[in-house]
Amino acid sequence: MHHRPFSVTTLGTGAALPARGRYPTAQVVNVHDGLYLVDCGEGTQERLRVAGINFQRINHIFISHLHGDHYLGLMGLISSMHLMGRQSPLHIHGPADLKAIIDIQLRASGTWLRFQMHFHATDPISGTVVLDEPGLTVSLLALRHRLPCTGFLFREKPALRGLRQDRVHEIPQFKRQAVKEGEDLILPNGTHVPNADLTVDPLPARAYAYCSDTAYEPALVPFLSKVDLLYHEATFTEALAARAKETLHSTAAQAARIAASAEVSRLLLGHFSSRYKHADVLLTEALAVFPRSLLSFEGGVFEVGG
Amino acid sequence: MHHRPFSVTTLGTGAALPARGRYPTAQVVNVHDGLYLVDCGEGTQERLRVAGINFQRINHIFISHLHGDHYLGLMGLISSMHLMGRQSPLHIHGPADLKAIIDIQLRASGTWLRFQMHFHATDPISGTVVLDEPGLTVSLLALRHRLPCTGFLFREKPALRGLRQDRVHEIPQFKRQAVKEGEDLILPNGTHVPNADLTVDPLPARAYAYCSDTAYEPALVPFLSKVDLLYHEATFTEALAARAKETLHSTAAQAARIAASAEVSRLLLGHFSSRYKHADVLLTEALAVFPRSLLSFEGGVFEVGG
Repeated sequence: MHHRPFSVTTLGTGAALPARGRYPTAQVVNVHDGLYLVDCGEGTQERLRVAGINFQRINHIFISHLHGDHYLGLMGLISSMHLMGRQSPLHIHGPADLKAIIDIQLRASGTWLRFQMHFHATDPISGTVVLDEPGLTVSLLALRHRLPCTGFLFREKPALRGLRQDRVHEIPQFKRQAVKEGEDLILPNGTHVPNADLTVDPLPARAYAYCSDTAYEPALVPFLSKVDLLYHEATFTEALAARAKETLHSTAAQAARIAASAEVSRLLLGHFSSRYKHADVLLTEALAVFPRSLLSFEGGVFEVGG
Repeated sequence: MHHRPFSVTTLGTGAALPARGRYPTAQVVNVHDGLYLVDCGEGTQERLRVAGINFQRINHIFISHLHGDHYLGLMGLISSMHLMGRQSPLHIHGPADLKAIIDIQLRASGTWLRFQMHFHATDPISGTVVLDEPGLTVSLLALRHRLPCTGFLFREKPALRGLRQDRVHEIPQFKRQAVKEGEDLILPNGTHVPNADLTVDPLPARAYAYCSDTAYEPALVPFLSKVDLLYHEATFTEALAARAKETLHSTAAQAARIAASAEVSRLLLGHFSSRYKHADVLLTEALAVFPRSLLSFEGGVFEVGG
């Protein structure tokens, strides 16, 4: 069992037009108690409050693209972070134009942020690493949409090997880090102890992939291979496949086909068109293709792996 | 009794920092069933839905100033108007910089609006007429705040005189409009009938003034004289008068002093700082100065005159 948290909270499941109690897209990814915000539709700061998430703990915000339902809550969130006395730096990753949109609004409101805001422009090239932290990398996924659009792949770094409890007393303190990293142990008397006798395999590294908004895009499959949780947009049913194609969105069946091809553990559906009163119809369609499909919902928390 | 509607729906009563179930500032003014939106904080489109107001009926939006809690819901509202097939023109009145903020975001999202959007830049000069419709004028109020900021004065045009039901048969059809407009009647036989014998006074024209955000500003008083309803911000209590002065906001007592000096019929308070769990403390303070004070609340509807 994994003890270090890795989960996704879905704050909104709606598409471009808010309706039916659905909010626009925003997610909080918790990796080892670090909080990462992915997309930030209008009202996200309120949804964070409702979910009981302290937004001052968020240090990185990732914006997929510049359709309003994915970023219009960002200025309000930045403003509230500022007014509530934030001092720690904030990193925003998104399309280059987003910086101009933020800057013009800070200027117009006469706001001088009390914290440092670092903007990192994203180019939609799959595999580009945009964040490299001690336990985590975040890399980009090139989605296919009407605007430049990136998904985000959160991948734990491989953990160190575990020391066997029954052998740990044999390993001198100063050698333990090296053994965890896979080295064999040479005792003072020259005895060679193979690493495999002293350690157990680490827990497998987990991964979460976020793909919204995108047309059906098989080129993503190698990058999504065997992730523990894949969030994939499912705006329409197959009955509206033509509309999906025209607007560069996906059907639930297409999302499920991507999940099946990539052999992911679980598929999480979202970005439901307001025409569907109940998202159940989208789930049914996905389940027929990929049985480990599930629906996101407002405030839902989904474990990654484990 | 007035039969033509004139009312204000307050969608949000919070100040810069949303909290305590309060939403940022937005109001819908209904004048003779025409709907006018005043300010548009984040989430306004959702609040309109909750209030059961069809936002496609709004043709004019007035933005007081460019602090986020007064305009950050505008892009989402414009986007939803567009996605829901709006075709009728939309007029936006606000500080000049707002146009650039809208344009950069429409461009970044690749949105080509299906309806005409007309932008009218406001200069904070009290008395400037920004809208002149058959039954209504809207003019500006120069507020005193950290940014250029305008209030809005909605004033009914004087109605025509009413024809006395017991005399109306004496007035030839083609003369009735002239009599309503105040002319005397000359009968075919030369008899002169004074207008006063044929008509009754029209209902008095009503007025609503919106003042947010502003420091205590006695220069407003002549422009607010005897309005039926004055909305005035009341961000703080007198205990925080220094903070009010520093941030160019008003205390509840200051709002009430303005109301008393202008001899308005009723004072409506709003824009409550998040530090006040209950706005009651602000009402108590205002009532001590001006007895016809009341609190706005989320979704509250307030009649203008009548």
